[in-house]
Amino acid sequence: MLFTLFEYLKSINIPGAGMFQYITFRSAMAVIFALLIATVFGKRMIRLLQRQQIGEVVRDLGLEGQYQKKGTPTMGGIIIITSILIPVLLFARLSNIYIILMLVTTVWLGVIGFLDDYIKVFRKNKEGLAGRFKIIGQVGLGLIIGLTLYFSNDVKVRVKIPITQEQAVVLGNNELQHVTEDVKAPMTNVPFFKNSQFNYSSLVGFLGEKAKKWGWVIFVLITIFIITAVSNGANITDGLDGLATGVSSITGITLGIFAYLSGHVLYADYLNVMYIPNSQELVVFMSAFIGACVGFLWYNSFPAQVFMGDTGSLTIGGIIAVFAILIRIELLIPILCGVFLVENISVMMQVGYFKYTKKRFGTGRRIFRMAPLHHHYQLKGYTESKIVVRFWIISIILAVLTIVTLKVR
Amino acid sequence: MLFTLFEYLKSINIPGAGMFQYITFRSAMAVIFALLIATVFGKRMIRLLQRQQIGEVVRDLGLEGQYQKKGTPTMGGIIIITSILIPVLLFARLSNIYIILMLVTTVWLGVIGFLDDYIKVFRKNKEGLAGRFKIIGQVGLGLIIGLTLYFSNDVKVRVKIPITQEQAVVLGNNELQHVTEDVKAPMTNVPFFKNSQFNYSSLVGFLGEKAKKWGWVIFVLITIFIITAVSNGANITDGLDGLATGVSSITGITLGIFAYLSGHVLYADYLNVMYIPNSQELVVFMSAFIGACVGFLWYNSFPAQVFMGDTGSLTIGGIIAVFAILIRIELLIPILCGVFLVENISVMMQVGYFKYTKKRFGTGRRIFRMAPLHHHYQLKGYTESKIVVRFWIISIILAVLTIVTLKVR
Repeated sequence: MLFTLFEYLKSINIPGAGMFQYITFRSAMAVIFALLIATVFGKRMIRLLQRQQIGEVVRDLGLEGQYQKKGTPTMGGIIIITSILIPVLLFARLSNIYIILMLVTTVWLGVIGFLDDYIKVFRKNKEGLAGRFKIIGQVGLGLIIGLTLYFSNDVKVRVKIPITQEQAVVLGNNELQHVTEDVKAPMTNVPFFKNSQFNYSSLVGFLGEKAKKWGWVIFVLITIFIITAVSNGANITDGLDGLATGVSSITGITLGIFAYLSGHVLYADYLNVMYIPNSQELVVFMSAFIGACVGFLWYNSFPAQVFMGDTGSLTIGGIIAVFAILIRIELLIPILCGVFLVENISVMMQVGYFKYTKKRFGTGRRIFRMAPLHHHYQLKGYTESKIVVRFWIISIILAVLTIVTLKVR
Repeated sequence: MLFTLFEYLKSINIPGAGMFQYITFRSAMAVIFALLIATVFGKRMIRLLQRQQIGEVVRDLGLEGQYQKKGTPTMGGIIIITSILIPVLLFARLSNIYIILMLVTTVWLGVIGFLDDYIKVFRKNKEGLAGRFKIIGQVGLGLIIGLTLYFSNDVKVRVKIPITQEQAVVLGNNELQHVTEDVKAPMTNVPFFKNSQFNYSSLVGFLGEKAKKWGWVIFVLITIFIITAVSNGANITDGLDGLATGVSSITGITLGIFAYLSGHVLYADYLNVMYIPNSQELVVFMSAFIGACVGFLWYNSFPAQVFMGDTGSLTIGGIIAVFAILIRIELLIPILCGVFLVENISVMMQVGYFKYTKKRFGTGRRIFRMAPLHHHYQLKGYTESKIVVRFWIISIILAVLTIVTLKVR
């Protein structure tokens, strides 16, 4: 909102008002405000949550120290969401389509996560929101994001169109090898390959030209799949103090760097990623996200004074997924969100193998001592804070590898 | 060393060899190698250290859980130093003056720290290297760095020289307002002020023109002061598992960003920081440093399997100080290294106040329950891992503020 105010102030030549046009300045303000809100407002919120609830009903996993966690309030995701929304509303350009989509994502998943937590805590129903409601929520969001990206005229990517020698002469520059054009297309960056951009519509291309107009179905399905996978991944990862929060902060920094680059016409060209006009504004959003996560970590690190709950984990997972889709690097998610992925897979492997062996041998067998993976290490004798810091370090390594893909092609 | 090899391979047109000319590529390799060495070689090194020593002789501070630390080997700084040196020797341009200075710093302080640890562990002398030897070491390094920076012809900064309208016409560009020239001068960036660069020689300027040639004395004294202050700061901060390691990683990332910017002619101009020709090579060094610290954290995080010892803390402190001086942002150290500073000051305040009150009232009084500051919080009942993560978060906030100074002027 301040953006519009300062645009006005600048137009009447108030000194200093021009600062607001710089994305870097507004991003810096967003991260500082998010940190302040998360730490200052967070403290009050935790006290409020403590009075309202007697803390999360901890699932009995037979883990040492687990009962110390009794009495720690959950729903801390409210702190994260507030610390994202206020700075974004203040410092981002609210007419920007990408900012609108991110705000919708935050609020939408925040509400679903909150309902889930609410039912768990106040109705004492450990199952929470019925699985089908959660899925309807994620599918609904996928539809909104997928359809908007596919059909909105505000969403474009800049592509290079090769031209012939003759055309170049006509345009008056013999050296010219291509012209650029902003097109509306469900395209994405393909890692490891130079100049290779993939158009999702081509997935239905083999069905003939007519099928192409159904390309949006594929795109929406992929969007739904990514959002569901990543937000469940974050949900599963959120099992040790500070684990999901720290991993998300690191992922957030990486996404912020990518958004800065693909929203900048020169860097995008230099690094051979798609230039996405107006997407640089997303850096302001991601800065608030990083500040919110780091600020929340103040209370969420071991030993936690508050848990984020589904309110937090579904939301941060969804934000990461949608953000990656908006800047068209969703194909990098398996590397970037490697921790979420491995945690997800560990659960699937454990459940699958148990069912299979039960059917085949009569008794179920396990691959890990316990799934998700972080509990496996806990049972192996590692302390909670050691596991958490090591998962953070793995996230840092994955972030470096993700950034390296920019150069290795 | 690989740099020279690949320069040759490129000259005979081996495909792919050109990658080595990119600082970003070599930095990425450096950080990955440093991480690998610290984690893989680190494990063996810890076992070796364990066999050689029965662990650090833990000072009896009456802190809970302190005796768990008995038996944890120290001198882990060897892991950090190795993980810095190997990637730098492999991937950096070794003829670069700044790289040479950083290598000298690493080895010099590493040796002093090692001697100190050695005497403590093997001679069972808790005092370690006599204070005066340590100071001689730090002063010696300050002399090397200060004098090289002041007198070497390889060390230059690019300054803008305003020209008159007439001169511009002569140069054939009426729009021109200044020309640039690379000069040898003890200049530094002044935070918060636009286009303001400070020349240390001017500190003696009031003594008349003749005194100006003694400007190097001032510069060397300041260099010695900064190196001593920061490396002692790191030394004092290194009192909780993972504290100094994590804080240094975050500081390292910030310094890496600054080195990248002030070594890039366009960004430096855009951000109004001094352009320092050839300094961008330092990004390769800092990448190795970050990788080494993060990799070491794998074993050093709570509960630590190894301590860095003076071998580590003196070295990382010195590296941070010298690096900041090389890229001329040493005036930002009080913000950037705020944690080191506050830990330093907490000790000085505690000791000073105790002595003062003892003299005045007969009995010494204390400001903190215990100094350095991190022990104060421990006695207040915070757990070790909580204090450490919070100090990291404070470092992140300080890093953001340091970067913001680029824009706020």
